Amino acid sequence: MTYNHEYWMAKALQLARKGLYSTHPNPRVGCVIVKDDELIGEGYHVRSGEGHAEVNALANASQDVAGATAYVTLEPCSHQGKTPPCADALIKAGVVRVVFGMQDPNPAVSGSGLAKLNNAGIEVVGPVLEADCEALNPGFIKRMREGLPFIRVKLAMSVDGRTAMESGESQWITGAEARQDVQRLRAQSDAIITGIGSVLADNPSMTVRINDADQAVDAKQVRQPLRVVMDTALSILPEAKILYPTKQACVFVLEDEVESEHLDVLQDKGVSVRFAPRGDDGRLDLLDAMEQLADAGINEVLVETGAELAGGFLQAGLVDEIVVYMAPKLMGSSARPMFQLPLDKMDEALNLELTSVRQIGEDLRLVYVPQYLEFEEDDSNLGEEAE
Amino acid sequence: MTYNHEYWMAKALQLARKGLYSTHPNPRVGCVIVKDDELIGEGYHVRSGEGHAEVNALANASQDVAGATAYVTLEPCSHQGKTPPCADALIKAGVVRVVFGMQDPNPAVSGSGLAKLNNAGIEVVGPVLEADCEALNPGFIKRMREGLPFIRVKLAMSVDGRTAMESGESQWITGAEARQDVQRLRAQSDAIITGIGSVLADNPSMTVRINDADQAVDAKQVRQPLRVVMDTALSILPEAKILYPTKQACVFVLEDEVESEHLDVLQDKGVSVRFAPRGDDGRLDLLDAMEQLADAGINEVLVETGAELAGGFLQAGLVDEIVVYMAPKLMGSSARPMFQLPLDKMDEALNLELTSVRQIGEDLRLVYVPQYLEFEEDDSNLGEEAE
Repeated sequence: MTYNHEYWMAKALQLARKGLYSTHPNPRVGCVIVKDDELIGEGYHVRSGEGHAEVNALANASQDVAGATAYVTLEPCSHQGKTPPCADALIKAGVVRVVFGMQDPNPAVSGSGLAKLNNAGIEVVGPVLEADCEALNPGFIKRMREGLPFIRVKLAMSVDGRTAMESGESQWITGAEARQDVQRLRAQSDAIITGIGSVLADNPSMTVRINDADQAVDAKQVRQPLRVVMDTALSILPEAKILYPTKQACVFVLEDEVESEHLDVLQDKGVSVRFAPRGDDGRLDLLDAMEQLADAGINEVLVETGAELAGGFLQAGLVDEIVVYMAPKLMGSSARPMFQLPLDKMDEALNLELTSVRQIGEDLRLVYVPQYLEFEEDDSNLGEEAE
Repeated sequence: MTYNHEYWMAKALQLARKGLYSTHPNPRVGCVIVKDDELIGEGYHVRSGEGHAEVNALANASQDVAGATAYVTLEPCSHQGKTPPCADALIKAGVVRVVFGMQDPNPAVSGSGLAKLNNAGIEVVGPVLEADCEALNPGFIKRMREGLPFIRVKLAMSVDGRTAMESGESQWITGAEARQDVQRLRAQSDAIITGIGSVLADNPSMTVRINDADQAVDAKQVRQPLRVVMDTALSILPEAKILYPTKQACVFVLEDEVESEHLDVLQDKGVSVRFAPRGDDGRLDLLDAMEQLADAGINEVLVETGAELAGGFLQAGLVDEIVVYMAPKLMGSSARPMFQLPLDKMDEALNLELTSVRQIGEDLRLVYVPQYLEFEEDDSNLGEEAE
């Protein structure tokens, strides 16, 4: 029986997904080596500083890979990083064909790995299952292409779109299964962002708590994400739970609103304090803060916060995905809204695209992508002038 | 091949569903006649005053029904109504077995049709597929058992639970497919209820408009439901569209708030004006109004109105089902809520049960059943005392 390229790429994708909770800031990548229609090697990238998928697959091969085909979800790298270039390893091992899922999203090196393989006489085929390969690394891709992390807003709400009672009370809107699913969302994120309002009200720890019974996640592989607090005037208490352990905590403040004494206390404890400028709306510039996180290697961000800050991300056009856990209950008309978002007319409504619906316990999990109006550059005229 | 009772009852259910838009105030009923494992007759009730399902099936039989089995979704009637009793017709035709889906929900006659068949020497089997047979006639059953119609609240809303902008603007929240689905909901209802606020703001006609291209509905069978306006102080304008044609329009008013002159104008036009007492909350007593509608033969009611009146039905514990069409958009935090429902604490939240999720065009159609706390009488102690 002869399998096609999609079949083997799907195998490589399965392997890549094993790195969902551990590879950051690197991308999740999987690789299989196939010879005479038989799988002879497989590997995936586990964590930064360790072997890339291709190298792991070659190392695990059950027989000589000379003459084999390598399937890899991402273009093999051609540059020396913490580990040697994978393109060289494939050439040295004698593979005759490389099938890739997507090109490297980094514009500076995209295509150079493929060119290196090609120059070495290796047949290069792809992209294969490109959309699936891209879906694996939304954060890494966005960071490489746009210098921003992929920003996911998570909300637990009632059917009537309320995320807390007027008093702030919100435990628990959703059921245990949905809350466990949120832990998985946290675990696959490089950073979790909340606002100072939530910190002062609830003193959350915002750590990942994976239940040992959760078959979907290997608890040993889970890394704690960076915990980020948006705190304009540096109002956070030094003993706030979210700051510990301090080496994984970060506070964003407005440059002109900081008391140096308070700043010193936090920095002495080892908390990273970052400064952001004031945006046009007078508040902390979220775009600048997100660029800083991307520069620091943050791929995927999970925003878990109240209506005010969540609305700020939305109004800044920064939200890539909204994950809604909708509980089967009505919390009433005086309860707090989903997003602070003042609109007057129907044609100002923000359109979303529904990309996933799933029932989790008694709750619904809905995934939406905001349809911001994009002002794409129209370069068709430019093209005509050039002729 | 031998089919079982469920197989033939499912056939009878399919037939019964053909009466979805036309049988009220009667129930939807279907019947098949089976002899030697072969379908020899089928029928369903089309509309009040015409033949019942059993009689239609017997009349359509392709051969002598003596010795056959009749499958009928509802217990055959034993009393003379607009048409003669079906039990007698089945006995006369010589069927040897009757398989029924559910007993007659009217406590006064429940079981008497089956007893009549039994006394005539006919084998009686059932209930078979009882839950499906009950689902066919939620309104008829509730009216017979509780003296109230089945009350369904329909809402079109955004993901953030908003049903109109602050100004009242609400056209259109959902897409064309969802709006067509609402027409089908209207068509299967005996009455559509709205509030005077919606009438004054939008001057809707609230008629059923079935597109000829809608394959799901036979437009010729569609009957226009009664249009009901909750209008405490009789503020409706005599030229309001919803009043025409006047013989299918009804206005509920508070007894003590009516100007007799205005009342005369409406009654002269042929509009039915009904009086309701003032409830404990000072507003029109919705329970009393619904009892009046049930007494008038209304089985299923569709409430299409604003947050205030919809909230009133909810707070009165009258809502049997909430059908939500959720559009993929955010209408913002100043837009109008789903229900006017002031709650302070999480444990006051009204729990719902999600019974159906379907995508319609770009919108989601969600069906919820409110889980009112029921104070069931605990008669176990009584039972012990009686022994």
